[in-house]
Amino acid sequence: MSKLLREHFEKITALTDQEFDYILSHFTTKKLKKHQFLVQAGDQVKYDYFVVKGLLKASFTNNDGKEHILQFAMEDWWVSDFQAYFNQTEAILDIDCIEAVEVLCLSLTNREKLCSEMHKIEHFFRRKSNFGYIALQSRILSLLNSSAKERYEELLQRSPILFQRVPKTLIASYLGVSRETLSRLSS
Amino acid sequence: MSKLLREHFEKITALTDQEFDYILSHFTTKKLKKHQFLVQAGDQVKYDYFVVKGLLKASFTNNDGKEHILQFAMEDWWVSDFQAYFNQTEAILDIDCIEAVEVLCLSLTNREKLCSEMHKIEHFFRRKSNFGYIALQSRILSLLNSSAKERYEELLQRSPILFQRVPKTLIASYLGVSRETLSRLSS
Repeated sequence: MSKLLREHFEKITALTDQEFDYILSHFTTKKLKKHQFLVQAGDQVKYDYFVVKGLLKASFTNNDGKEHILQFAMEDWWVSDFQAYFNQTEAILDIDCIEAVEVLCLSLTNREKLCSEMHKIEHFFRRKSNFGYIALQSRILSLLNSSAKERYEELLQRSPILFQRVPKTLIASYLGVSRETLSRLSS
Repeated sequence: MSKLLREHFEKITALTDQEFDYILSHFTTKKLKKHQFLVQAGDQVKYDYFVVKGLLKASFTNNDGKEHILQFAMEDWWVSDFQAYFNQTEAILDIDCIEAVEVLCLSLTNREKLCSEMHKIEHFFRRKSNFGYIALQSRILSLLNSSAKERYEELLQRSPILFQRVPKTLIASYLGVSRETLSRLSS
């Protein structure tokens, strides 16, 4: 399972075997079954999670019990409640497993330690954060401006695999449309 | 005007005079009058801009001519079309001056050069990007979940100064409500 992590780092920065082994020693592993929670609202969020296997969703449930899906995450993605992780506050998101999941867990202390010790790891995480920032900005523009049909088509183009692995009810929740609207869009 | 930039860097990382002078040598300066554009949709986006004086807005205008405000920026903030800047593609945003503006301009080449040469600058920009990511995630949750009244109150709490400096029509556009709704909320 460490092979995927190494390939992931090396998309941005080359690593020697020793460097990678050292980095890997700062991660722990965790396995969860389908439907289990990786993070629950109210938890202390100790880790950022790199997904080695499986599929999860990060969502916010409001006072009326309505769930808004913020993010899906699958192999080669990171997922956490980043606000709670970076600010060391309580989670406001739930992160649960749509499929059985294996993740590599990186604590904030170990992340900062690696970034401080290895300039190339600081570089890696800066680049990742930039990509993430751009993706969120696109999502905001899409929420502000696009129609349900446009949001559906964007998601289909960007992540076609999601449509094979995620139940349609959850895709609808991510897009902010009803299950009926989604059926009309996908027919 | 360089004092503000130095204070801004030193909120995250201490710098010697030599280090700061070296960093500053990678910036150029620009002044714009009220209503002028810093970036126009379709432009090549060469710079990220640190605001030394004044107030701007970054917005997206759709095919029907409707403007969606993505961000305001004032003293001590960075503003650009980040997607276009990092990917070196054409701007999809307009950035224009609500007040007369002075900015310090950092090209992507110079940003990457400084990050590569100085670990502490890579650290600075990673931390800034993390903060930005968290702010955008909050905005997405707010768009997905909050009522107009909640969004108004959040903005008032987070950036009270905006309500003194920005015309109400623009505040309404940022919140995604009509001018009439905003008047009702603020009365």
